[in-house]
Amino acid sequence: MQLSQPPNEQIILGIDPGTNVLGYSVIALCGKKITLLEMDVLKLDKEELSTKMKVIFDFILAQIERYKPDILAVEAPFFGKNVQSLLKLGRSQGLCIAAALSRGVPFVEYPPRRIKQAVTGNGAASKEQVAAMLRRMIGFEGEIKYLDATDALAVAVCCAFQKDIEPMETPSKKTKTKSSWAAFASAHPQRVKQ
Amino acid sequence: MQLSQPPNEQIILGIDPGTNVLGYSVIALCGKKITLLEMDVLKLDKEELSTKMKVIFDFILAQIERYKPDILAVEAPFFGKNVQSLLKLGRSQGLCIAAALSRGVPFVEYPPRRIKQAVTGNGAASKEQVAAMLRRMIGFEGEIKYLDATDALAVAVCCAFQKDIEPMETPSKKTKTKSSWAAFASAHPQRVKQ
Repeated sequence: MQLSQPPNEQIILGIDPGTNVLGYSVIALCGKKITLLEMDVLKLDKEELSTKMKVIFDFILAQIERYKPDILAVEAPFFGKNVQSLLKLGRSQGLCIAAALSRGVPFVEYPPRRIKQAVTGNGAASKEQVAAMLRRMIGFEGEIKYLDATDALAVAVCCAFQKDIEPMETPSKKTKTKSSWAAFASAHPQRVKQ
Repeated sequence: MQLSQPPNEQIILGIDPGTNVLGYSVIALCGKKITLLEMDVLKLDKEELSTKMKVIFDFILAQIERYKPDILAVEAPFFGKNVQSLLKLGRSQGLCIAAALSRGVPFVEYPPRRIKQAVTGNGAASKEQVAAMLRRMIGFEGEIKYLDATDALAVAVCCAFQKDIEPMETPSKKTKTKSSWAAFASAHPQRVKQ
């Protein structure tokens, strides 16, 4: 499905790369206005490890195909977790980044503290505080079932707020005709840190 | 480049997924005979993190394109390493698996101990012992500069030796006409553990 999109709108795909529950969000950024297009989780807890990896990779590819994001923003796994979790999170993150790479979509990653700081002004905010702030900021309704989904929204919003956006990957295979993130940055020099 | 290949030959791409030095090897398995086609390392220590990720993904894709492996065998990162290494190794492994997934190549992963056990009979063997045993077994010549390369060969050889091969991913997008791993297994029932 090709979504109709205003020419200056930027689409950001935000990912919280879990291995049992992967949070994702899609926002449209037009000037300073953020519109939530989708926010949910991909539940993987009943899958075999090998199936999980395929499901994650195929799902991110499908989201890229659907929304044609200008950038994929992913949370960098947190070093405080236990080693087995870290390994799985690293693998999940690698799969998400590979999906972006395989479609020529630039990507950026942020550590959890920076994401919380960007959204709430407090790098040590709880997941609930982040969710409450996002709800006020963007105005979405309904019950929040999974904080992994709002975490993924926080990643996307953090990306939208960044003034020092430097995509980690320059598009090469990108075939979209709409303006790129680089074009957005050059059109909004005040949002780019020199 | 399409390599000419006997109909019963199976190609195994073995990966030791480092982040500064990634070892890789390609072997051809015909009956019980193993032929080394390529063994080397991809050096990444001078690259930026984002570049590393793209280089790893593109490199594995290129190896798959070149050798059309029947299976990709990857070493599972070792839990004894420090957490930062584990995260990076997990990411590197995720990128390699994503490359296999994106080309419909089945993949399998083994922990280091199982690989050492398969090659030397001792799960606690040193890298040097593994390299020396591989040299005697396969008969390659020349100096071994990087033990990451022989580690990657050990992964491929471990895969070749397994009697309980169950690829973690069944090919779906595979377009090759040569026999699949499943066909190999059904043609060699004595090599498949019931």
